[in-house]
Amino acid sequence: MDIAAVNALPYEEFVNIFGNVVEKCPIVAAAVWSRRPFVSLTAVEAAISDFIDALPESGKEGILRCHPDLAGRDLQSGTLTRESREEQAGAGMDALSSPEASRIARLNDDYKERFGFPFVICARMNDKASILLQLSERCQNERAVERARGIEEVKKICRLRLQGLVLTDATNK
Amino acid sequence: MDIAAVNALPYEEFVNIFGNVVEKCPIVAAAVWSRRPFVSLTAVEAAISDFIDALPESGKEGILRCHPDLAGRDLQSGTLTRESREEQAGAGMDALSSPEASRIARLNDDYKERFGFPFVICARMNDKASILLQLSERCQNERAVERARGIEEVKKICRLRLQGLVLTDATNK
Repeated sequence: MDIAAVNALPYEEFVNIFGNVVEKCPIVAAAVWSRRPFVSLTAVEAAISDFIDALPESGKEGILRCHPDLAGRDLQSGTLTRESREEQAGAGMDALSSPEASRIARLNDDYKERFGFPFVICARMNDKASILLQLSERCQNERAVERARGIEEVKKICRLRLQGLVLTDATNK
Repeated sequence: MDIAAVNALPYEEFVNIFGNVVEKCPIVAAAVWSRRPFVSLTAVEAAISDFIDALPESGKEGILRCHPDLAGRDLQSGTLTRESREEQAGAGMDALSSPEASRIARLNDDYKERFGFPFVICARMNDKASILLQLSERCQNERAVERARGIEEVKKICRLRLQGLVLTDATNK
Protein backbone atom coordinates (compact mmCIF):
# COMPACT_ATOMS: atom_id res chain seq x y z
CA MET A 1 0.00 0.00 0.00
CA ASP A 2 1.57 3.33 -1.00
CA ILE A 3 0.73 6.60 0.70
CA ALA A 4 -1.72 7.55 -2.08
CA ALA A 5 -3.65 4.37 -1.30
CA VAL A 6 -3.57 5.22 2.43
CA ASN A 7 -4.88 8.71 1.69
CA ALA A 8 -7.70 7.28 -0.42
CA LEU A 9 -9.03 5.05 2.38
CA PRO A 10 -12.49 5.92 3.76
CA TYR A 11 -12.30 6.40 7.52
CA GLU A 12 -13.87 3.02 8.19
CA GLU A 13 -11.14 1.16 6.30
CA PHE A 14 -8.44 3.41 7.74
CA VAL A 15 -9.61 2.60 11.28
CA ASN A 16 -9.94 -1.11 10.45
CA ILE A 17 -6.34 -1.21 9.26
CA PHE A 18 -4.63 1.23 11.64
CA GLY A 19 -6.99 1.13 14.63
CA ASN A 20 -4.61 -0.84 16.84
CA VAL A 21 -1.31 0.90 16.09
CA VAL A 22 -1.90 2.36 19.55
CA GLU A 23 -3.11 -0.59 21.59
CA LYS A 24 -6.90 -0.66 22.00
CA CYS A 25 -7.11 3.04 21.12
CA PRO A 26 -8.80 3.19 17.69
CA ILE A 27 -9.73 6.78 18.52
CA VAL A 28 -6.14 7.74 17.68
CA ALA A 29 -6.22 6.46 14.10
CA ALA A 30 -9.80 7.69 13.78
CA ALA A 31 -8.70 11.18 14.84
CA VAL A 32 -5.64 11.48 12.61
CA TRP A 33 -7.70 10.51 9.56
CA SER A 34 -8.83 14.16 9.77
CA ARG A 35 -5.25 15.18 8.92
CA ARG A 36 -5.16 13.60 5.46
CA PRO A 37 -3.59 13.83 2.98
CA PHE A 38 -0.32 12.53 4.39
CA VAL A 39 2.88 13.00 2.42
CA SER A 40 4.44 9.82 3.82
CA LEU A 41 4.12 7.13 6.46
CA THR A 42 6.37 9.28 8.61
CA ALA A 43 3.72 11.99 8.43
CA VAL A 44 1.08 9.54 9.68
CA GLU A 45 3.37 8.67 12.57
CA ALA A 46 3.97 12.36 13.32
CA ALA A 47 0.23 13.06 13.32
CA ILE A 48 -0.29 10.24 15.82
CA SER A 49 2.53 11.53 17.99
CA ASP A 50 1.10 15.07 17.91
CA PHE A 51 -2.34 13.78 18.83
CA ILE A 52 -0.99 11.86 21.82
CA ASP A 53 1.11 14.82 22.95
CA ALA A 54 -1.97 17.08 22.85
CA LEU A 55 -3.89 14.85 25.26
CA PRO A 56 -4.19 15.91 28.89
CA GLU A 57 -1.99 13.91 31.26
CA SER A 58 -5.00 11.79 32.23
CA GLY A 59 -5.42 10.87 28.57
CA LYS A 60 -1.81 9.75 28.34
CA GLU A 61 -2.35 7.65 31.44
CA GLY A 62 -5.51 6.35 29.76
CA ILE A 63 -3.48 5.15 26.78
CA LEU A 64 -1.05 3.35 29.09
CA ARG A 65 -3.95 1.72 30.96
CA CYS A 66 -5.25 0.26 27.68
CA HIS A 67 -2.06 -1.83 27.48
CA PRO A 68 -1.87 -5.37 28.84
CA ASP A 69 0.69 -6.49 31.38
CA LEU A 70 3.78 -8.13 29.98
CA ALA A 71 3.47 -11.89 30.58
CA GLY A 72 0.22 -11.17 32.41
CA ARG A 73 -3.34 -12.39 32.61
CA ASP A 74 -4.21 -11.64 28.97
CA LEU A 75 -1.25 -13.59 27.67
CA GLN A 76 -2.15 -16.56 29.85
CA SER A 77 -5.83 -16.49 28.93
CA GLY A 78 -5.23 -15.92 25.22
CA THR A 79 -7.01 -12.55 25.19
CA LEU A 80 -4.14 -10.38 23.98
CA THR A 81 -4.62 -8.49 20.72
CA ARG A 82 -2.84 -10.21 17.82
CA GLU A 83 -0.18 -7.50 17.76
CA SER A 84 0.57 -7.75 21.50
CA ARG A 85 0.65 -11.54 21.36
CA GLU A 86 3.24 -11.53 18.59
CA GLU A 87 5.32 -8.85 20.27
CA GLN A 88 5.30 -10.54 23.68
CA ALA A 89 6.07 -13.94 22.14
CA GLY A 90 8.94 -12.41 20.16
CA ALA A 91 10.52 -11.25 23.44
CA GLY A 92 10.05 -14.67 25.04
CA MET A 93 7.28 -13.59 27.40
CA ASP A 94 5.30 -16.75 26.55
CA ALA A 95 8.18 -19.04 27.52
CA LEU A 96 9.28 -17.86 30.97
CA SER A 97 10.54 -20.23 33.62
CA SER A 98 8.39 -20.42 36.71
CA PRO A 99 10.75 -18.22 38.78
CA GLU A 100 10.94 -15.68 35.94
CA ALA A 101 7.16 -15.60 35.63
CA SER A 102 6.77 -15.08 39.38
CA ARG A 103 9.35 -12.31 39.41
CA ILE A 104 7.80 -10.42 36.49
CA ALA A 105 4.30 -10.79 38.00
CA ARG A 106 5.52 -9.35 41.31
CA LEU A 107 7.34 -6.47 39.58
CA ASN A 108 4.29 -5.72 37.40
CA ASP A 109 2.13 -5.55 40.51
CA ASP A 110 4.61 -3.28 42.29
CA TYR A 111 4.77 -1.04 39.24
CA LYS A 112 0.98 -0.77 38.89
CA GLU A 113 0.56 -0.18 42.61
CA ARG A 114 3.10 2.63 42.50
CA PHE A 115 1.99 4.37 39.31
CA GLY A 116 -1.62 3.42 38.60
CA PHE A 117 -0.80 2.30 35.06
CA PRO A 118 1.04 -0.71 33.64
CA PHE A 119 4.69 -1.04 32.64
CA VAL A 120 4.82 -0.43 28.88
CA ILE A 121 7.89 -1.24 26.84
CA CYS A 122 8.46 -1.88 23.14
CA ALA A 123 9.00 -5.65 23.41
CA ARG A 124 10.29 -5.93 19.86
CA MET A 125 13.23 -3.68 20.70
CA ASN A 126 14.13 -5.65 23.84
CA ASP A 127 14.82 -9.19 24.98
CA LYS A 128 13.79 -10.94 28.18
CA ALA A 129 16.83 -9.88 30.19
CA SER A 130 16.54 -6.25 29.19
CA ILE A 131 12.79 -6.19 29.90
CA LEU A 132 13.33 -7.59 33.40
CA LEU A 133 16.12 -5.13 34.07
CA GLN A 134 14.11 -2.12 32.93
CA LEU A 135 11.00 -3.24 34.77
CA SER A 136 12.89 -3.35 38.04
CA GLU A 137 14.76 -0.10 37.35
CA ARG A 138 11.80 1.93 36.09
CA CYS A 139 9.83 1.08 39.24
CA GLN A 140 12.16 3.57 40.97
CA ASN A 141 11.25 6.54 38.76
CA GLU A 142 9.00 9.46 39.61
CA ARG A 143 5.45 9.11 38.35
CA ALA A 144 5.60 11.94 35.77
CA VAL A 145 8.92 10.67 34.44
CA GLU A 146 7.52 7.20 34.09
CA ARG A 147 4.33 8.39 32.42
CA ALA A 148 6.42 10.18 29.78
CA ARG A 149 8.67 7.16 29.44
CA GLY A 150 5.69 4.86 28.90
CA ILE A 151 4.34 7.17 26.20
CA GLU A 152 7.74 7.11 24.45
CA GLU A 153 7.49 3.33 24.38
CA VAL A 154 3.90 3.54 23.03
CA LYS A 155 5.26 5.61 20.14
CA LYS A 156 8.01 3.08 19.40
CA ILE A 157 5.43 0.27 19.37
CA CYS A 158 3.22 2.39 17.11
CA ARG A 159 6.06 3.04 14.65
CA LEU A 160 6.82 -0.67 14.29
CA ARG A 161 3.15 -1.60 13.93
CA LEU A 162 2.70 1.08 11.25
CA GLN A 163 5.76 -0.14 9.38
CA GLY A 164 4.43 -3.66 9.53
CA LEU A 165 1.15 -2.55 7.98
CA VAL A 166 2.54 -0.48 5.13
CA LEU A 167 5.43 -1.39 2.87
CA THR A 168 7.89 1.24 3.91
CA ASP A 169 9.84 1.29 0.64
CA ALA A 170 6.68 2.36 -1.19
CA THR A 171 5.43 4.94 1.28
CA ASN A 172 8.10 6.18 3.61
CA LYS A 173 9.82 8.52 1.22
CA MET B 1 -22.35 -1.39 43.05
CA ASP B 2 -22.25 1.82 45.09
CA ILE B 3 -19.86 4.67 44.40
CA ALA B 4 -17.47 3.50 47.14
CA ALA B 5 -17.18 0.19 45.29
CA VAL B 6 -16.58 2.04 42.01
CA ASN B 7 -13.86 4.14 43.66
CA ALA B 8 -12.18 1.00 45.02
CA LEU B 9 -11.81 -0.63 41.60
CA PRO B 10 -8.27 -1.10 40.30
CA TYR B 11 -7.93 0.51 36.88
CA GLU B 12 -8.06 -2.84 35.11
CA GLU B 13 -11.47 -3.68 36.55
CA PHE B 14 -12.71 -0.13 36.05
CA VAL B 15 -11.77 -0.29 32.35
CA ASN B 16 -13.25 -3.78 32.02
CA ILE B 17 -16.56 -2.56 33.39
CA PHE B 18 -16.78 0.98 31.98
CA GLY B 19 -14.51 0.69 28.92
CA ASN B 20 -17.35 0.80 26.41
CA VAL B 21 -19.53 3.55 27.89
CA VAL B 22 -18.07 5.53 25.01
CA GLU B 23 -18.22 3.12 22.08
CA LYS B 24 -14.87 1.44 21.37
CA CYS B 25 -13.03 4.17 23.31
CA PRO B 26 -11.73 2.50 26.49
CA ILE B 27 -9.19 5.32 26.70
CA VAL B 28 -11.99 7.52 28.06
CA ALA B 29 -12.78 5.34 31.08
CA ALA B 30 -9.07 4.62 31.48
CA ALA B 31 -8.34 8.36 31.60
CA VAL B 32 -11.08 9.36 34.04
CA TRP B 33 -9.94 6.67 36.50
CA SER B 34 -7.24 9.27 37.31
CA ARG B 35 -9.99 11.52 38.69
CA ARG B 36 -11.08 9.20 41.52
CA PRO B 37 -12.53 9.37 44.08
CA PHE B 38 -15.92 10.23 42.58
CA VAL B 39 -18.68 11.52 44.85
CA SER B 40 -21.43 10.01 42.68
CA LEU B 41 -22.18 8.40 39.34
CA THR B 42 -23.01 11.89 38.09
CA ALA B 43 -19.43 12.87 38.88
CA VAL B 44 -18.14 9.97 36.76
CA GLU B 45 -20.35 11.15 33.93
CA ALA B 46 -19.13 14.74 34.36
CA ALA B 47 -15.50 13.60 34.29
CA ILE B 48 -16.15 11.75 31.03
CA SER B 49 -17.88 14.78 29.56
CA ASP B 50 -14.99 17.04 30.58
CA PHE B 51 -12.48 14.64 29.07
CA ILE B 52 -14.33 14.57 25.75
CA ASP B 53 -14.72 18.36 25.72
CA ALA B 54 -10.98 18.78 26.26
CA LEU B 55 -10.12 16.75 23.17
CA PRO B 56 -9.10 18.58 20.02
CA GLU B 57 -11.79 18.64 17.31
CA SER B 58 -10.03 15.78 15.53
CA GLY B 59 -10.35 13.73 18.70
CA LYS B 60 -14.07 14.39 18.86
CA GLU B 61 -14.36 13.30 15.23
CA GLY B 62 -12.27 10.26 16.20
CA ILE B 63 -14.85 9.31 18.83
CA LEU B 64 -17.66 9.61 16.28
CA ARG B 65 -15.70 7.47 13.79
CA CYS B 66 -15.46 4.67 16.37
CA HIS B 67 -19.26 4.33 16.18
CA PRO B 68 -20.96 1.86 13.85
CA ASP B 69 -23.55 2.88 11.28
CA LEU B 70 -27.16 2.50 12.37
CA ALA B 71 -28.56 -0.58 10.64
CA GLY B 72 -25.22 -0.94 8.87
CA ARG B 73 -22.61 -3.55 8.05
CA ASP B 74 -21.76 -4.40 11.67
CA LEU B 75 -25.39 -5.06 12.55
CA GLN B 76 -25.79 -7.32 9.51
CA SER B 77 -22.57 -9.22 10.14
CA GLY B 78 -23.11 -9.58 13.89
CA THR B 79 -19.99 -7.60 14.79
CA LEU B 80 -21.62 -4.82 16.82
CA THR B 81 -20.58 -4.43 20.43
CA ARG B 82 -23.15 -5.91 22.81
CA GLU B 83 -24.27 -2.43 23.87
CA SER B 84 -24.78 -1.20 20.30
CA ARG B 85 -26.59 -4.37 19.31
CA GLU B 86 -29.08 -3.99 22.15
CA GLU B 87 -29.57 -0.28 21.50
CA GLN B 88 -30.08 -0.69 17.75
CA ALA B 89 -32.45 -3.63 18.26
CA GLY B 90 -34.42 -1.61 20.81
CA ALA B 91 -35.03 1.05 18.16
CA GLY B 92 -36.07 -1.54 15.59
CA MET B 93 -32.95 -1.21 13.44
CA ASP B 94 -32.70 -5.01 13.17
CA ALA B 95 -36.24 -5.32 11.77
CA LEU B 96 -36.41 -2.79 8.93
CA SER B 97 -38.42 -3.39 5.80
CA SER B 98 -36.37 -3.61 2.65
CA PRO B 99 -37.31 -0.06 1.51
CA GLU B 100 -36.52 1.30 5.00
CA ALA B 101 -33.16 -0.47 5.01
CA SER B 102 -32.31 0.91 1.57
CA ARG B 103 -33.30 4.41 2.59
CA ILE B 104 -31.28 4.41 5.79
CA ALA B 105 -28.25 2.95 3.99
CA ARG B 106 -28.40 5.70 1.38
CA LEU B 107 -28.82 8.42 4.01
CA ASN B 108 -25.95 7.00 6.08
CA ASP B 109 -23.73 7.06 3.00
CA ASP B 110 -24.73 10.64 2.18
CA TYR B 111 -24.07 11.68 5.76
CA LYS B 112 -20.63 10.05 5.88
CA GLU B 113 -19.69 11.45 2.49
CA ARG B 114 -20.66 14.94 3.63
CA PHE B 115 -19.11 14.93 7.12
CA GLY B 116 -16.40 12.25 7.22
CA PHE B 117 -17.92 10.65 10.30
CA PRO B 118 -21.05 8.56 10.90
CA PHE B 119 -24.49 9.67 12.03
CA VAL B 120 -24.60 9.11 15.80
CA ILE B 121 -27.85 9.22 17.73
CA CYS B 122 -28.93 7.86 21.10
CA ALA B 123 -31.11 5.04 19.75
CA ARG B 124 -32.65 4.33 23.14
CA MET B 125 -34.14 7.83 23.24
CA ASN B 126 -35.63 7.52 19.74
CA ASP B 127 -37.77 5.21 17.63
CA LYS B 128 -37.43 4.25 14.01
CA ALA B 129 -39.48 7.13 12.64
CA SER B 130 -37.65 9.74 14.66
CA ILE B 131 -34.25 8.27 13.72
CA LEU B 132 -35.10 8.40 10.01
CA LEU B 133 -36.38 11.95 10.31
CA GLN B 134 -33.31 13.18 12.16
CA LEU B 135 -30.94 11.37 9.84
CA SER B 136 -32.42 13.14 6.82
CA GLU B 137 -32.61 16.50 8.60
CA ARG B 138 -29.17 16.45 10.19
CA CYS B 139 -27.58 15.78 6.78
CA GLN B 140 -28.35 19.45 6.05
CA ASN B 141 -26.34 20.84 8.98
CA GLU B 142 -22.95 22.50 8.87
CA ARG B 143 -20.06 20.20 9.71
CA ALA B 144 -19.07 21.87 13.01
CA VAL B 145 -22.69 21.93 14.16
CA GLU B 146 -23.08 18.28 13.34
CA ARG B 147 -19.84 17.29 15.04
CA ALA B 148 -21.05 18.98 18.23
CA ARG B 149 -24.47 17.39 17.84
CA GLY B 150 -22.93 13.92 17.41
CA ILE B 151 -20.88 14.43 20.58
CA GLU B 152 -24.03 15.43 22.49
CA GLU B 153 -25.55 12.13 21.41
CA VAL B 154 -22.40 10.25 22.48
CA LYS B 155 -22.86 11.74 25.95
CA LYS B 156 -26.51 10.66 26.10
CA ILE B 157 -25.53 7.12 25.09
CA CYS B 158 -22.78 7.20 27.71
CA ARG B 159 -25.18 8.31 30.46
CA LEU B 160 -27.58 5.45 29.76
CA ARG B 161 -24.80 2.89 29.55
CA LEU B 162 -23.36 4.13 32.85
CA GLN B 163 -26.76 3.96 34.50
CA GLY B 164 -27.20 0.43 33.21
CA LEU B 165 -23.90 -0.60 34.78
CA VAL B 166 -24.40 0.91 38.22
CA LEU B 167 -27.54 0.84 40.31
CA THR B 168 -28.48 4.48 40.24
CA ASP B 169 -30.40 4.50 43.51
CA ALA B 170 -27.24 3.51 45.35
CA THR B 171 -24.79 5.80 43.61
CA ASN B 172 -26.43 8.70 41.86
CA LYS B 173 -27.03 10.89 44.87
